[in-house]
Amino acid sequence: MARTIVASATKEIVIGFDQPFCVIGERINPTGRKKLAAEMVEGNFETVKADALAQVAAGATMLDVNAGVTAVDPNATEPELLVRTLEIVQDLVDVPLSIDSSVTGAIEAALKVAKGRPLVNSVTGEDEKLEAILPLCKKYDVPVVAISNDETGISEDPDVRFAVAKKIVERAADYGIKADDIVVDPLVMPIGAMGTAGQQVFRLVRRLREELGVNTTCGLSNISFGLPHRHGINAAFIPMVIASGMTSAIMNPCRPQEMEMVHAANVLSGNDPDCGNWIVNYRDHQPAAAGTATAAPAGRAAGRRGGREARRARA
Amino acid sequence: MARTIVASATKEIVIGFDQPFCVIGERINPTGRKKLAAEMVEGNFETVKADALAQVAAGATMLDVNAGVTAVDPNATEPELLVRTLEIVQDLVDVPLSIDSSVTGAIEAALKVAKGRPLVNSVTGEDEKLEAILPLCKKYDVPVVAISNDETGISEDPDVRFAVAKKIVERAADYGIKADDIVVDPLVMPIGAMGTAGQQVFRLVRRLREELGVNTTCGLSNISFGLPHRHGINAAFIPMVIASGMTSAIMNPCRPQEMEMVHAANVLSGNDPDCGNWIVNYRDHQPAAAGTATAAPAGRAAGRRGGREARRARA
Repeated sequence: MARTIVASATKEIVIGFDQPFCVIGERINPTGRKKLAAEMVEGNFETVKADALAQVAAGATMLDVNAGVTAVDPNATEPELLVRTLEIVQDLVDVPLSIDSSVTGAIEAALKVAKGRPLVNSVTGEDEKLEAILPLCKKYDVPVVAISNDETGISEDPDVRFAVAKKIVERAADYGIKADDIVVDPLVMPIGAMGTAGQQVFRLVRRLREELGVNTTCGLSNISFGLPHRHGINAAFIPMVIASGMTSAIMNPCRPQEMEMVHAANVLSGNDPDCGNWIVNYRDHQPAAAGTATAAPAGRAAGRRGGREARRARA
Repeated sequence: MARTIVASATKEIVIGFDQPFCVIGERINPTGRKKLAAEMVEGNFETVKADALAQVAAGATMLDVNAGVTAVDPNATEPELLVRTLEIVQDLVDVPLSIDSSVTGAIEAALKVAKGRPLVNSVTGEDEKLEAILPLCKKYDVPVVAISNDETGISEDPDVRFAVAKKIVERAADYGIKADDIVVDPLVMPIGAMGTAGQQVFRLVRRLREELGVNTTCGLSNISFGLPHRHGINAAFIPMVIASGMTSAIMNPCRPQEMEMVHAANVLSGNDPDCGNWIVNYRDHQPAAAGTATAAPAGRAAGRRGGREARRARA
């Protein structure tokens, strides 16, 4: 049974089949957020701080930290900016972090200063990437998100994506990294563009769990790209991936409807003992007539627009 | 691939793995509804009519019709009342019906007057029941809901419940009834009382689909019995059972949150071609700030309290 251990300075979290779903907050990411990018370049981290606090208050298990502002030479500028962002976030909140960058130098710089045991986001099946990222994961003893694409791009064939994931797991083993420390992202396509996208993910997640014994994650909101009322699609996708065996997702925790489905799916998959978390969060829930049908637990912040598609499109 | 065909006078519906989830409206049922029971005994069918129209307007695929008012001798009184209720409903709406009674004479009386191809609800694994109901299903060429309990009651062991379902399918075959015409209810326990209830159902539905090749159904709201904010649990349970392969449920279609999850899960399981139904229903959806976070499609009725637990408890 896969157990991926991540930690902040003082808090350890296990990602696993018998654990509550791990919600990785996606908000601290300037991709597609021009205003945030401009702020970060100017050294203004107020939005970063607000997003960190809001996501933790909304129930995020971990936070993803990305500092990929558009730059002429990200290799030169991103390491410093990512380190600064990471340090601000880890000084502010006590959840494990995910170090999210396509720049190897930025990942290593962040790993040097990160407290606890962060997650590296990400490696792909590209040889160059594998050779750059896996030695870092071994050196710093940290787990990594493995995205199921390679030099040939993202295959529409789920069997090819499974094979890429398998290759990454095997290559990691060559470096002495065990499967427990690989969290596979099987890649979620927009259902509006590919009608089989959901079935592909459900089947892939099941195979990844049963055949490779690994934890899994995804950029959750990709599934609803281009459709009206995306939050309804996202909200249904969460219980479906959890029923298929997915153990984490990179998503916006500031969306009450989606978080309600995370909490409920934890109950239904048997990972909320005695329904304790559900009862605490929803015992005073008021039905639709009193306000919103999917009211957030008291004191939890409302979200703003964001997404992970842009990041994927760029990757 | 299982194909259960049900029909009203003019409308045929297929329940199947590649079909939109079949929502069987549960509201026309006096069990636990004292006022409705009293009305029906007095010959007042206004609530029955209103419930029929509201459920169809809310998107029910079929309607369950139960006339089990408490009576000293239901064998004497229920046939006539069920026939009358069924005739009123089938004259009013054009969806296939489910004939729901524990009284064999009532089921046969209803089968005699039912238009199209109704579903019989239900047979169990009890020999006496099998011998009473299966010949009727054969005689009238109608499908039947097979509930996975027998003389020993409802087993908490899912393997026993699977064995009971298998016995019913085999016994039906002896009568010349094919597996296509058996819709198995694996029995849903309250998750608040049994933490493995969800996992049991997911695994059972998968086995019933893969090993017996049958369609499945359940009394959906049983899962949340005793918990706060039951609709949140029900709403997450729907995509999870659909991801596991369930093809229908007896539920309240007048709950927008639950129906939204049915529509979204149809999209995600690839059974809403080109997301056509989703787009029609939700293209004008307003987010939470404008009213309710899970607004029903325009013109759809709001629901009232109801449930299926009581019926199960009585069964």
